[in-house]
Amino acid sequence: MNRERHIASAFDRDLETVQALVVKMGGLVEAAITDAALALETRDDELAEDVRRRDRSIDLLEAQVNEEAARLIALRSPTATDLRLVLTVIKISASLERVGDYAKNIAKRSNVLAHMPVIEGAGMALRRMSSTVEKMLKDALDSYVHRDAALASDVRARDLEVDQMYNALFREFLTHMMEDPRNITACMHLHFIAKNIERMGDHATSIAEQVVYLMSGALPDESRPKRDSVSRAGIPDSED
Amino acid sequence: MNRERHIASAFDRDLETVQALVVKMGGLVEAAITDAALALETRDDELAEDVRRRDRSIDLLEAQVNEEAARLIALRSPTATDLRLVLTVIKISASLERVGDYAKNIAKRSNVLAHMPVIEGAGMALRRMSSTVEKMLKDALDSYVHRDAALASDVRARDLEVDQMYNALFREFLTHMMEDPRNITACMHLHFIAKNIERMGDHATSIAEQVVYLMSGALPDESRPKRDSVSRAGIPDSED
Repeated sequence: MNRERHIASAFDRDLETVQALVVKMGGLVEAAITDAALALETRDDELAEDVRRRDRSIDLLEAQVNEEAARLIALRSPTATDLRLVLTVIKISASLERVGDYAKNIAKRSNVLAHMPVIEGAGMALRRMSSTVEKMLKDALDSYVHRDAALASDVRARDLEVDQMYNALFREFLTHMMEDPRNITACMHLHFIAKNIERMGDHATSIAEQVVYLMSGALPDESRPKRDSVSRAGIPDSED
Repeated sequence: MNRERHIASAFDRDLETVQALVVKMGGLVEAAITDAALALETRDDELAEDVRRRDRSIDLLEAQVNEEAARLIALRSPTATDLRLVLTVIKISASLERVGDYAKNIAKRSNVLAHMPVIEGAGMALRRMSSTVEKMLKDALDSYVHRDAALASDVRARDLEVDQMYNALFREFLTHMMEDPRNITACMHLHFIAKNIERMGDHATSIAEQVVYLMSGALPDESRPKRDSVSRAGIPDSED
């Protein structure tokens, strides 16, 4: 959306303030993903604790985005197009807040897993998966800030990769459980972590879809990757 | 919120139109929950298919709510209080859409589970859990429509019950898996279904919280049951 205004309006300035909050939120959420995955792989209880504590700041930022966005609408009575920009910010911050919750949940499970048998290779695979998702999330936010529809489409396409990583892990954890019942509890937690990361990917995709909506006025529907991945959730392709 | 206007304004009429859409959405989502649980328990492939198909109508209604709400804001430039009512409708319909996705996912797993060994009692326990959640969702929507803060608080309190049901099922499925590795795959799916129902409960709670927000201007924070239940997710109390 090439907003051709020669003088920045009061609306534009206010919107930038709200967008800056969302970018800040994005930074905190990305750090939470990285640290949660690292804490899991290195069994670092303190780092996991830290991730859990920091989630509060993310929640507060979301509340702030909602307040500011509502204030902006009430104060500036934006046009239809500008209004859409503001409503998108609200949706994006809601997605970021959910991703933050997932990172917190991973950190919590990481604390639990630190006292269970190690499942060889799981920590590394999950960290790889989470760094893929973190990059998606970063690009989704960038596509919003720069109104970059091509980048947004790219993010949507990458969600399939995350789903494949998830399916591979699902099968791997099943194998570990069948081989040795003592692995079952640990694998259940690892599996939930993989699922949480996959859901983070869904949220990054959903942010990218908001950008598409913003620039075209319509959500991509029929062939929406997110819809598919939600229903595919947890059911590897082989069973699909 | 006792809106003391002697003559219904254009805003009020428009808001009622949007609210009617949300109530309709609520009805479809409640039916999806009931039918998904029934299809699972009775291994009714056709009913499960039907639930999956019907999710499309729920998605379309959400898009319609978003459109109408945006149109309403642009057209009527509502005051701060009225604006909050509209933003709440958007958030509530987003929650309903997610619950619909979970029901669809349950239906999909139900199709898969129909070809696996029966886990005694699981279908009934899951149906009980889902009917508790369905009631919560119904009451959460009623609390919105009637601006009933007491009912909203009641819904929030009931989320703990759902969490307890989930924790009990988590332990039960673990036991089945340890007893016989041939149960592992089925139990993984059943476990995800239990988790999906628990998440539906989180969304009902989140709708109730929107009502609290609507009537007080502040989300209940520190002791928010939803926050807790997200982090508690999947980790039974004994491990907590």
